[in-house]
Amino acid sequence: MTNGESSISIEVPSETRKEAKGKAPLIAGGTHKHERKGGWKKGIAILDFILRLSATAAALGAAAAMGNSEETLPFFTQFLQFQASYDDLPTFQFFVIAMAIVGGYLVLSLPFSIVTIIRPHATGPKLLLLTLDIVALTLTTSAAAAGASIVYLAHNGNPSANWIAICQQYGDFCQQVSGAVVSSFIAVVIFMLLIVLSAFALRRKH
Amino acid sequence: MTNGESSISIEVPSETRKEAKGKAPLIAGGTHKHERKGGWKKGIAILDFILRLSATAAALGAAAAMGNSEETLPFFTQFLQFQASYDDLPTFQFFVIAMAIVGGYLVLSLPFSIVTIIRPHATGPKLLLLTLDIVALTLTTSAAAAGASIVYLAHNGNPSANWIAICQQYGDFCQQVSGAVVSSFIAVVIFMLLIVLSAFALRRKH
Repeated sequence: MTNGESSISIEVPSETRKEAKGKAPLIAGGTHKHERKGGWKKGIAILDFILRLSATAAALGAAAAMGNSEETLPFFTQFLQFQASYDDLPTFQFFVIAMAIVGGYLVLSLPFSIVTIIRPHATGPKLLLLTLDIVALTLTTSAAAAGASIVYLAHNGNPSANWIAICQQYGDFCQQVSGAVVSSFIAVVIFMLLIVLSAFALRRKH
Repeated sequence: MTNGESSISIEVPSETRKEAKGKAPLIAGGTHKHERKGGWKKGIAILDFILRLSATAAALGAAAAMGNSEETLPFFTQFLQFQASYDDLPTFQFFVIAMAIVGGYLVLSLPFSIVTIIRPHATGPKLLLLTLDIVALTLTTSAAAAGASIVYLAHNGNPSANWIAICQQYGDFCQQVSGAVVSSFIAVVIFMLLIVLSAFALRRKH
């Protein structure tokens, strides 16, 4: 009987090893599936990085175009020279500051985006980026919309309020400013794509 | 030896049952934890619903305040009566339309928010709401910022562009319009909270 008991004690670990061997391919299959899903997430992370680079270009381009917009008319009187610059209008000053902040944030966010490429399953950096992206989206949209409303006014004026259209005199200035506003709206669209992508990458079933 | 073997064959299932019994509380504990996490998600869903109601009130209030803003001055000449209304300014028309759209969207989104309260683990409605919320946030922000830039101009004018401040004549009109813009910025803040909450509720580890 002691011999029989010893045969039991040998048999039980051998069954455990067989179970362990039986489980091994299952675990390997799980890991493989995991890696495939990780690849899908990595693709989204790389797309996020590319979109972020484009948004940086759009935001900094908008800030530079607005910041360099000025026009001096080729005639002047004895007392004043006719000159238009972005800092004549407080909205355009806000535009330049907001776009510079957004551009700076985007440059600083690039390393975090690289972290999400290297570690596709880390949710911490993604949540941080998503939250800050929403703030940046709001800032970009407000600058773009405020700029657009003033550009519209500069082009068309408003007869009810006796505001005259200044673009008849300052055509080049208006074109530069309009270009900056268009560039900022491109940044808005890219930000919306970025946030929707991040939300899809964060969802539970993946 | 056959008796010994039979004792083995009895012993093994008894161990399996013991294991099964040992696992049972573990599984139960898991279910309990799952329910507790479901409760945490349900709390976020209820907060989402309340915030959505507040945003509806803010957006519809902004649209109503802007839509009803008009002022007729108590004096008139032979040919014209001095009157200011929101539809004198295209930006304010856009403001009313955008806020009405956002208010309508928010009312329509309330049933989906109730669905996420009832089924806290369904990701489909949450992703839909998150995507549409981002679009609504952008629309609200652009209306609020464009309105704010025109309100600023109405209050302060712009000497460089020869745009005069109209609030000296139309004080009541300006106050109503400013109130509408403030209300729309409240809606923007609530939208940002909503989107960050949704992103946290959607994340993988929960």
